[in-house]
Amino acid sequence: MPRHRVHIPLRWSDADAYGHINNVQFLRLLEDARVTALGVDLLDHARRPDGGALMVSRQEIEYLAPLAFRIPPIGIDLWVTRIGAADFELAYEVLDGEPGAETVCARAETTLFSFDLDGGRPRRIDTATREKLTGWIDGPLNWKRRRREPQAAR
Amino acid sequence: MPRHRVHIPLRWSDADAYGHINNVQFLRLLEDARVTALGVDLLDHARRPDGGALMVSRQEIEYLAPLAFRIPPIGIDLWVTRIGAADFELAYEVLDGEPGAETVCARAETTLFSFDLDGGRPRRIDTATREKLTGWIDGPLNWKRRRREPQAAR
Amino acid sequence: MPRHRVHIPLRWSDADAYGHINNVQFLRLLEDARVTALGVDLLDHARRPDGGALMVSRQEIEYLAPLAFRIPPIGIDLWVTRIGAADFELAYEVLDGEPGAETVCARAETTLFSFDLDGGRPRRIDTATREKLTGWIDGPLNWKRRRREPQAAR
Amino acid sequence: MPRHRVHIPLRWSDADAYGHINNVQFLRLLEDARVTALGVDLLDHARRPDGGALMVSRQEIEYLAPLAFRIPPIGIDLWVTRIGAADFELAYEVLDGEPGAETVCARAETTLFSFDLDGGRPRRIDTATREKLTGWIDGPLNWKRRRREPQAAR
Repeated sequence: MPRHRVHIPLRWSDADAYGHINNVQFLRLLEDARVTALGVDLLDHARRPDGGALMVSRQEIEYLAPLAFRIPPIGIDLWVTRIGAADFELAYEVLDGEPGAETVCARAETTLFSFDLDGGRPRRIDTATREKLTGWIDGPLNWKRRRREPQAAR
Repeated sequence: MPRHRVHIPLRWSDADAYGHINNVQFLRLLEDARVTALGVDLLDHARRPDGGALMVSRQEIEYLAPLAFRIPPIGIDLWVTRIGAADFELAYEVLDGEPGAETVCARAETTLFSFDLDGGRPRRIDTATREKLTGWIDGPLNWKRRRREPQAAR
Repeated sequence: MPRHRVHIPLRWSDADAYGHINNVQFLRLLEDARVTALGVDLLDHARRPDGGALMVSRQEIEYLAPLAFRIPPIGIDLWVTRIGAADFELAYEVLDGEPGAETVCARAETTLFSFDLDGGRPRRIDTATREKLTGWIDGPLNWKRRRREPQAAR
Repeated sequence: MPRHRVHIPLRWSDADAYGHINNVQFLRLLEDARVTALGVDLLDHARRPDGGALMVSRQEIEYLAPLAFRIPPIGIDLWVTRIGAADFELAYEVLDGEPGAETVCARAETTLFSFDLDGGRPRRIDTATREKLTGWIDGPLNWKRRRREPQAAR
């Protein structure tokens, strides 16, 4: 199955007074899910010999249920919803509950683009990365709360 | 004009090696913009005598240009795009550049809902808050990168 | 042996451009070492039925060598150097290197005190906590860089 | 007077459920006090033309009273307690209370050393920095809780 499940530890300081993971800290969990799944070398432009970098151009997240702090790492399912010439979208489902009875406590999507640091502009995703990402393509994210059209103010 | 401009300081640790504000840290700036504009009492359920809280159900952000660290606070325009019975949407434009020649380096939207902590469920936005928010209604956010329909995977 | 070794994961965002863990973020690692070793219930006053809390009154840390980001958790040795009536000191050694050939990349000490939230003042460490801590008593921390006397300015 | 007072804003997310600034976040305030007082160029090795950097080798902090979140920036007094050949110590008092009636809610000291990034080793503090620091020399920090000798375990 193309979806990739990683296990990401929570940090005590991620949680608020009620022991619930803070909304901004969810994005740190997604960042670590990317690093774990894609590999440090792919994301760390300091380590890439080809002078490239993957940069975030867009993020979207919906919070469906509070996630309580616990010591065992939580599961995050991660997959690719779209690959373009120089960018791609990663989708995530942050899971809670017992193995086999998981519920989705948050859904998110990050758009990343491939950037040439030396030339200072976007560039095509390299072949090795494209192959890896293509293996993770799965369907679109089923947003519960996303509006298709921006709402006129009332 | 209904748009509300606040000035939010950057923190040295918000910036990466290139002196650019980290993508997740932008959400801390938006959080501080909310606190400054709406007031601590409104957002801090510990301080609200009515047992309520404002909680984040959704966030969306597009990053248009890097924001370089600087010591003077940056400008963030903030307004309301929608008010529902128990929830509302705040839109933001994060600004860079000289006064009078500002550019938008990021756009974002946060959906907040009014929650009764004692009853454990959403509840109507109270009158005082609704009046305040109504005064800040302005048009929808002009996303540059948002897709109206989720893309089928290729 | 009274020293307690825990394994604490690093976070991608803990690291700077050189891939080295930021000096302030080390204190988050120590915090997670405390939570893992002492247990969530002991540290989370929201969970303690007795209305108590453990609060930090002092911290000290020396950084001996850079710690590079890696995905496998790092080892932290943790022990008690002193138990008083209402406070105690935890010492830590943050480890790097291969098992059996570990080096100490940072040393630290945290003073924690037992606090009665209802009464608003310190109170004696409860018996169960004192027993647990007593089992972890080991010698003083061998600081490399600590000055015994404050230096007069030159 | 050699002590240098800077005003550093608090962030909503620095505070816990009681509205008190988290112990680790105090170190972010100290970091921003350094950046504001010493200047971005001095601390940001990416900006220094001479390939140097100032790195933290040690930190110590005592927390004397809780600091409640407030929107106006807080005052931090900052001065130099020692300048060596390649390192120096900065002392801080974090202030609370009305102007003219300030109380000290935390004291801290950071040891910084001058490092040659190209050569990979410490080097002498440059003349301009040494002159600036010398102007800020004042007496030692009056710790309330620091033990001169490490305690034997009991």
